[in-house]
Amino acid sequence: MVSGIKEFEAYRAKMNDKILGSGHLGIKRFFNLDTMCYQGGALDARTKELLGLVASCVLRCDDCIDYHLIQCVRLGFTDHELHEALNVALVVGGSIFIPHMRHAFETIEELRELEANGGLPQM
Amino acid sequence: MVSGIKEFEAYRAKMNDKILGSGHLGIKRFFNLDTMCYQGGALDARTKELLGLVASCVLRCDDCIDYHLIQCVRLGFTDHELHEALNVALVVGGSIFIPHMRHAFETIEELRELEANGGLPQM
Amino acid sequence: MVSGIKEFEAYRAKMNDKILGSGHLGIKRFFNLDTMCYQGGALDARTKELLGLVASCVLRCDDCIDYHLIQCVRLGFTDHELHEALNVALVVGGSIFIPHMRHAFETIEELRELEANGGLPQM
Amino acid sequence: MVSGIKEFEAYRAKMNDKILGSGHLGIKRFFNLDTMCYQGGALDARTKELLGLVASCVLRCDDCIDYHLIQCVRLGFTDHELHEALNVALVVGGSIFIPHMRHAFETIEELRELEANGGLPQM
Amino acid sequence: MVSGIKEFEAYRAKMNDKILGSGHLGIKRFFNLDTMCYQGGALDARTKELLGLVASCVLRCDDCIDYHLIQCVRLGFTDHELHEALNVALVVGGSIFIPHMRHAFETIEELRELEANGGLPQM
Amino acid sequence: MVSGIKEFEAYRAKMNDKILGSGHLGIKRFFNLDTMCYQGGALDARTKELLGLVASCVLRCDDCIDYHLIQCVRLGFTDHELHEALNVALVVGGSIFIPHMRHAFETIEELRELEANGGLPQM
Repeated sequence: MVSGIKEFEAYRAKMNDKILGSGHLGIKRFFNLDTMCYQGGALDARTKELLGLVASCVLRCDDCIDYHLIQCVRLGFTDHELHEALNVALVVGGSIFIPHMRHAFETIEELRELEANGGLPQM
Repeated sequence: MVSGIKEFEAYRAKMNDKILGSGHLGIKRFFNLDTMCYQGGALDARTKELLGLVASCVLRCDDCIDYHLIQCVRLGFTDHELHEALNVALVVGGSIFIPHMRHAFETIEELRELEANGGLPQM
Repeated sequence: MVSGIKEFEAYRAKMNDKILGSGHLGIKRFFNLDTMCYQGGALDARTKELLGLVASCVLRCDDCIDYHLIQCVRLGFTDHELHEALNVALVVGGSIFIPHMRHAFETIEELRELEANGGLPQM
Repeated sequence: MVSGIKEFEAYRAKMNDKILGSGHLGIKRFFNLDTMCYQGGALDARTKELLGLVASCVLRCDDCIDYHLIQCVRLGFTDHELHEALNVALVVGGSIFIPHMRHAFETIEELRELEANGGLPQM
Repeated sequence: MVSGIKEFEAYRAKMNDKILGSGHLGIKRFFNLDTMCYQGGALDARTKELLGLVASCVLRCDDCIDYHLIQCVRLGFTDHELHEALNVALVVGGSIFIPHMRHAFETIEELRELEANGGLPQM
Repeated sequence: MVSGIKEFEAYRAKMNDKILGSGHLGIKRFFNLDTMCYQGGALDARTKELLGLVASCVLRCDDCIDYHLIQCVRLGFTDHELHEALNVALVVGGSIFIPHMRHAFETIEELRELEANGGLPQM
């Protein structure tokens, strides 16, 4: 089951390379802004990553949820902290979020296995 | 201009009373869950409030943005911290969020005036 | 307060006339489909109107909510039935629906006053 | 082809157990509210299930559509009634719903086969 | 009635100044990307503006619709061309777009009056 | 990899036949409106197809994106023109669109291979 994250990671890296390889300046700058907005500043990087996670949850994008869960686990969030964030998303976003919550719990489980084996992806 | 928040606060309180006055058990329980999910636990109340703010931003609801901004200002967030949270919402949610960002900046300005006069609403 | 519905009704009629007055065939046909889909068939008109209401709620459009509430009140739904439908929307759509629930309760109150005075709009 | 529903059912049950097994009180209460809101009251259970279906359609969530279709078939809705509900969703939600309408028609077909063989899932 | 556009234009300019005046680098860069993406390149500016209009329509943001309609009128689009673009949005986005279509028709009418008087806003 | 488009094309045709085979008049008329709205008129078919693409992008529907990309490639749009349209969607819709942008780039690559082999689908 663990391979789901690894496959996502490889696909994401491959396609991002193709997107940036298109040479479109606006797209390239957007990707830079995207990276920049999660770096620590007035708010620390941990808080910002959690904001990205909850935003992805209420907008219901599994790939974005996975991306931010990887970062959150790398930044040391515990399961209980992640569940609290997912609960905020559940209340704000409603039961339509539940299928994505199932996906998020599955991803967290995979990430804990990877973590236990020292194999968390570097994104 | 300051009266915008006060009017919102009064309307919100009046209508919430009518909603809860309907005696519908499911609605009442949902309102309780909504209150409960922002209370400090594994994540502190400050972080959760910011999650609620960004979720409201990307779902583009001005009333929800105002509600969470009031709470965030009461919890001591600085303008710069709020701008960083709004910037995460801007990157995740795109330019379609910009009109709500204008609204948010106006609300923050109103709240700082109320704060300076000791008149922040208790919600 | 009752005039809110009347103003909405007048604005809606005036602008729909302008839209249909544009002579665009596709738009005209869409408006016909829109009217047709709420007429009784395999499902009765009451059920369909309620479906339109809940769809409008979870998509968070106050004008659409008002339109369907007017129709629902004309079709004889009680407050308690409407609250149950709004509760389904609340659970599915989450707390981001709450500001629209406040709006819906206000509209229902206005419609009951109009109904008591024999002044429900014919839409 | 019939196995699609069975797999969904098994995955859904397994992950819901894990979510509830997390011991998070807010999440558990939300799941209870979710179950409760479709039980018969001022509106009967059949009507509420149809409301859940159309809400899921316009919010474009295939898993939620499947869940409500299973319940709707168990509650005795005919194909023609379901098509009328899907048509309301199509008009309200637009052509962006069409891929989900394709999915819904496929699920209905699977459910009718399961029904004919006495194998409708108990959810 | 014409003053609606003028008020929007003034409010938009005032608040954008405050947002950019916050000195947040990420926000400033996003605003630059936003301006840049509508400039002529492989696609001409007229086509891009129309893309912005339809994107704003299906995401149902009146302020964004107004902004792009102002630009579209400045770029010489006829009413009939704009109606065709709005019709694409209606089909893709569904009847939930209709209230915004009413708004769009009202804005177009205002813009034609301003245009006749040589008073189209420079944005 | 090329088979992805071919499978989508076959599934789409099969299920659309079933949907239209249901004999539901409203659904049939909607499908006709959907076809009609992309035909050349005051705006040419090329421009309308691009509007459909960007609308599908910001509403984040991969199947709709694929459908419009097929049409756009058939209508002769270059990669650079398509990237510009996707960039408008990225700015308006935000980083939540990025996973769909990855999907779009993959589809464009497949379509160029099909085109080189004279095998573009006729939809």
